Amino acid sequence: MTKLNPATREKLNNVSTATICTALFKRGLRNQFIQDVRPLKAKGGNMVGEAFTLRYIPAREDLNPISVFEDRMHPQRKAVEDCPPGAVFMIDSRKNSRAASAGSILVSRLMVRGVAGIVTDGGFRDSPEIAELPIPAYHNRPAAPTNITLHQALDINVAIGCGDVAVWPGDAVVGDAEGVVVIPIALADEIAAEAVEMTVFENFVTEEVLKGRSIIGLYPPTDEQSRIDFAAWRKRAHR
Amino acid sequence: MTKLNPATREKLNNVSTATICTALFKRGLRNQFIQDVRPLKAKGGNMVGEAFTLRYIPAREDLNPISVFEDRMHPQRKAVEDCPPGAVFMIDSRKNSRAASAGSILVSRLMVRGVAGIVTDGGFRDSPEIAELPIPAYHNRPAAPTNITLHQALDINVAIGCGDVAVWPGDAVVGDAEGVVVIPIALADEIAAEAVEMTVFENFVTEEVLKGRSIIGLYPPTDEQSRIDFAAWRKRAHR
Amino acid sequence: MTKLNPATREKLNNVSTATICTALFKRGLRNQFIQDVRPLKAKGGNMVGEAFTLRYIPAREDLNPISVFEDRMHPQRKAVEDCPPGAVFMIDSRKNSRAASAGSILVSRLMVRGVAGIVTDGGFRDSPEIAELPIPAYHNRPAAPTNITLHQALDINVAIGCGDVAVWPGDAVVGDAEGVVVIPIALADEIAAEAVEMTVFENFVTEEVLKGRSIIGLYPPTDEQSRIDFAAWRKRAHR
Amino acid sequence: MTKLNPATREKLNNVSTATICTALFKRGLRNQFIQDVRPLKAKGGNMVGEAFTLRYIPAREDLNPISVFEDRMHPQRKAVEDCPPGAVFMIDSRKNSRAASAGSILVSRLMVRGVAGIVTDGGFRDSPEIAELPIPAYHNRPAAPTNITLHQALDINVAIGCGDVAVWPGDAVVGDAEGVVVIPIALADEIAAEAVEMTVFENFVTEEVLKGRSIIGLYPPTDEQSRIDFAAWRKRAHR
Amino acid sequence: MTKLNPATREKLNNVSTATICTALFKRGLRNQFIQDVRPLKAKGGNMVGEAFTLRYIPAREDLNPISVFEDRMHPQRKAVEDCPPGAVFMIDSRKNSRAASAGSILVSRLMVRGVAGIVTDGGFRDSPEIAELPIPAYHNRPAAPTNITLHQALDINVAIGCGDVAVWPGDAVVGDAEGVVVIPIALADEIAAEAVEMTVFENFVTEEVLKGRSIIGLYPPTDEQSRIDFAAWRKRAHR
Amino acid sequence: MTKLNPATREKLNNVSTATICTALFKRGLRNQFIQDVRPLKAKGGNMVGEAFTLRYIPAREDLNPISVFEDRMHPQRKAVEDCPPGAVFMIDSRKNSRAASAGSILVSRLMVRGVAGIVTDGGFRDSPEIAELPIPAYHNRPAAPTNITLHQALDINVAIGCGDVAVWPGDAVVGDAEGVVVIPIALADEIAAEAVEMTVFENFVTEEVLKGRSIIGLYPPTDEQSRIDFAAWRKRAHR
Repeated sequence: MTKLNPATREKLNNVSTATICTALFKRGLRNQFIQDVRPLKAKGGNMVGEAFTLRYIPAREDLNPISVFEDRMHPQRKAVEDCPPGAVFMIDSRKNSRAASAGSILVSRLMVRGVAGIVTDGGFRDSPEIAELPIPAYHNRPAAPTNITLHQALDINVAIGCGDVAVWPGDAVVGDAEGVVVIPIALADEIAAEAVEMTVFENFVTEEVLKGRSIIGLYPPTDEQSRIDFAAWRKRAHR
Repeated sequence: MTKLNPATREKLNNVSTATICTALFKRGLRNQFIQDVRPLKAKGGNMVGEAFTLRYIPAREDLNPISVFEDRMHPQRKAVEDCPPGAVFMIDSRKNSRAASAGSILVSRLMVRGVAGIVTDGGFRDSPEIAELPIPAYHNRPAAPTNITLHQALDINVAIGCGDVAVWPGDAVVGDAEGVVVIPIALADEIAAEAVEMTVFENFVTEEVLKGRSIIGLYPPTDEQSRIDFAAWRKRAHR
Repeated sequence: MTKLNPATREKLNNVSTATICTALFKRGLRNQFIQDVRPLKAKGGNMVGEAFTLRYIPAREDLNPISVFEDRMHPQRKAVEDCPPGAVFMIDSRKNSRAASAGSILVSRLMVRGVAGIVTDGGFRDSPEIAELPIPAYHNRPAAPTNITLHQALDINVAIGCGDVAVWPGDAVVGDAEGVVVIPIALADEIAAEAVEMTVFENFVTEEVLKGRSIIGLYPPTDEQSRIDFAAWRKRAHR
Repeated sequence: MTKLNPATREKLNNVSTATICTALFKRGLRNQFIQDVRPLKAKGGNMVGEAFTLRYIPAREDLNPISVFEDRMHPQRKAVEDCPPGAVFMIDSRKNSRAASAGSILVSRLMVRGVAGIVTDGGFRDSPEIAELPIPAYHNRPAAPTNITLHQALDINVAIGCGDVAVWPGDAVVGDAEGVVVIPIALADEIAAEAVEMTVFENFVTEEVLKGRSIIGLYPPTDEQSRIDFAAWRKRAHR
Repeated sequence: MTKLNPATREKLNNVSTATICTALFKRGLRNQFIQDVRPLKAKGGNMVGEAFTLRYIPAREDLNPISVFEDRMHPQRKAVEDCPPGAVFMIDSRKNSRAASAGSILVSRLMVRGVAGIVTDGGFRDSPEIAELPIPAYHNRPAAPTNITLHQALDINVAIGCGDVAVWPGDAVVGDAEGVVVIPIALADEIAAEAVEMTVFENFVTEEVLKGRSIIGLYPPTDEQSRIDFAAWRKRAHR
Repeated sequence: MTKLNPATREKLNNVSTATICTALFKRGLRNQFIQDVRPLKAKGGNMVGEAFTLRYIPAREDLNPISVFEDRMHPQRKAVEDCPPGAVFMIDSRKNSRAASAGSILVSRLMVRGVAGIVTDGGFRDSPEIAELPIPAYHNRPAAPTNITLHQALDINVAIGCGDVAVWPGDAVVGDAEGVVVIPIALADEIAAEAVEMTVFENFVTEEVLKGRSIIGLYPPTDEQSRIDFAAWRKRAHR
């Protein structure tokens, strides 16, 4: 798996998923925000990492007694041990949050192993505990029933769908208090750079707006004066 | 746009959407509560104002490049500048929260302009920032993708649907920590007056219930004694 | 109604809905977690009690003017007075949260009467007030419109569906910050006992995982060493 | 159960569900059309009868092995034998069509017993066979899994919800190729009479429109001439 | 309203909505097929015409008694009389098929007036009658309740959303047995021309495939031989 | 891929999906019927074959221009050429029918190659043409937009989810006019045998019921007389 450039990782730590979505939109990518997934708790700072994936299919009763977890090679447990530090663990749960994608023990293990975060388009069990762990976690809603009630882990690190978004192993994944966005790895550097630039401008605009300035001509800066003021502000602010 | 009577505005500031819904129900209006919309954060106090509306239709890709916002007359941006202070900015997003109805800069501008609040039956981007702004804001769920991904702003201040409710420009809109209700402007004064009366009675009932009294005969006050006690309580409480 | 064994009640106070779901799964019960229902506010400690039920059907306009509540035998009001202390009040709202299942006055009355909690697969009105009451309450989402807008209370303490789960009067009901699970009363003692045992083991595993131990061979404890370590830990921890 | 007046039954045989809905709407009943239910096959003529109901709750696995049907008093089987000839068998399946409400053998038995039709807001199994039986049947979609996979029959002839409509035992039920409408029994005679009158007028309007006449002033007949023409047409047509 | 070029209209009569969607996709238009709408009955031949629109908002009970239709300028009735012959009448029903968008009398009037077809993203009442009228009609599902139960007609011939697609007045609309697609009017000529060409090629491919030829190298024709064979076939077939 | 035993294939040709579901239910398999999928047209006879699968993920715009199909190894096209005669082609479209899973040319190719049928939990384009082809085809609803609008074919013959059911390559798949059921291949022989036996009994019961016999004691045959009569009938009918 290609590693995210550390400078890019740092940049992605300081921009919002909303800004990233706009940068992606400009390149024709309209569908990179994972739909209907939210942080279990806002934890300060962004989640940033390369996508490492796990694919579930519907469970079949005879294949999924509680004893399956005794198999040391069970894909869910193996994936938790295989996911590289710094990566984001992404689960395709087919948008089914009626049974758990994972629980607090697995999330704790991922955290201890240095994984950057965990995302499912289903739900977590032990969600109150996971909310308190210092690792970002995103899901649809809490789901107490054990994983194998409805899910069977199958593939590790293949391309998946998650919340209606294509996730390819190694894609750059960014989460903030709003949600999670997936950036094709080949675009990560340029998206990160552009998002930082956009953020600087948006910070300027926000300041101006809060001082009472109209958005017309300012956002976007179709007035020459807006561009002059931004240049001056930027200089003053050393950004 | 007819302005809300200041006395009515004050009354609506001190009653709940639930009480207003009951007063509307008594007049045959059963569908005035905006469905599946919630405050980004409870901000204390109600949101009260006249409805000022914006209508979106689905975006068509060729009509919605990022450059559309360079048009100073773009309806979304124009609406933000046109919305009167004291009004509530209501957006018909066709209940689609897969792309943003608006973001923090526009909401900040509305706030600075003295607008009373903002409501969409879609979702906001920059929702963590909006949550912290001292202006009430209601949506379905966060939506980072830029507005023009799925929406095109079209009409300003026409009658719309929002969360399955008819919203006519100038209607009285009230929001609390529970959600948002729309009151036909012609009924605003009488609904406000009745809701205040109902609230006084409900405060009395709540006190009694917390003291251990049964609801039978008290709520509603079919027992003569309940009406006597209420009259006495009201006198004592100067309400 | 059979009363929950006090020892069982105590045990159920100290285990999670997730653990209970696994114990039920082992006995072939895969569908006991109430779907898409959440606490209005985390209130510390579990909700535990026997199920006492109320069944709603769709309201018909001519049968449900506001005056129905003047009937002292109206099933909603009667149920609130009949529900035994220590029970959980469970409402079948047909998963319809477009109008209220109940409001703060009825919930206050239940609380004062010593009821253990209230659950609906619809929504509560006055939800901000209910959130602050020291009684556990679970619903789908806030719903300001008065109950009779869409619901008519019909039957008291019959078997119902709630959030896609069968609820039989007298079943053991447990709620935590994650949600609500229903345990057939005949299984309550053994499920409680097993859940306590599972919790002890999960506490051990969590400690080990946070210390850096791999889950393979530990969870489940397929390694002999895991079982030895657990026995030692248990002794030390007096559990 | 009150029997439908034979003259009323005959009238209801000759009007559409759409016309009946309008007559109900004029009396403030806006929600009597069963939502998202369709005939398995158009069979010519209306289905008309008094409602006889069956209530399902979610199945619990331990209570619903295949052997439950060996109980001669099993509510599903008992209901099929108890439903009066001329009645419509209405099932509350909680709008769940993932498992069957009933299959062709039970529907055949109802047919042989002279039952007027069968309606579920879930789905039938053996739907191709049921489609060919000369008894009207309405459901949401085919559902091959056996009933007890997800449903447990509980109550016979209680008030239920079916497709979001309140169904009280003895209500008049009418089905045509469009769907199914429920008429409160107390209103059946007047609704039937009014619907017949409306149908006569709509037949006249349809003829006129097909001849090229504008709907303005004709439908509704706000032009005096429309009323004169209708009177003449009615005389000529002996209606 | 710009009229469709007669040659373009003829071409659109002879291609499928699927082929048109592909031609639109090549130009970056990915969302022009109206979602979840179907013909009441396959009627042979395509529906082709310019879009003429009607916008509904949610009905408010006090504004929508049955007497509203006595107003000769009621927008629903006026729209039916105003829609130009050859146009397609498109209704924005907010994807709500719980009450009717229109019934057989209005559809008959549109037919007699020479309108090319009618589309709603809600449902029609009198659907069995409409199915038999020789005018194409598309909806989501039958809906017997009268229009004003849930809808209020507001605007005539404004841009709308219909089945998640933007419909601008004057757009080219094509319906076949599969569904309905909307073509921006500026692209109608070139899309029609390209779709005809694509159809010729697809006819050739279909013949070859039915004779047993592999799709690899043929569809698309990456093999030189496929292009040679197509040229020969086209010559022989005079297309 | 294990081939279905020819005798088993023949048996599965003569039983219904409903009967198979019951046989599976008796073995604890409750979730084998593909949800919300229907035949494009009833074609007489069952579809029977081994599952051959294709997995889609969400399309990303930059990876899915129209030119992808020029790749001779594109998984969708390759799968169509690889699927063995006698197999059923099963597509995991993530229950998304907003763009096509496949169109008539690919289905024609599968038909010519001797494939037994095709199933998607999305939708087909060219559905009117596919409906007329003499190969069974099942989908959710028609979907004219080209496949790559929303789907990207990825894996061939891996385990998938289809309509909420686990489909393992080589499973026995049976479709009738009601829908599609998936039988784990290891159980195919015994399920087929049991289903044939059940069908014989159900044929007897149906005859008896149509003659007027009560279902009590007959279905299931808890009366000794029912079993005697069945034995006699079976002898007479040579089954």
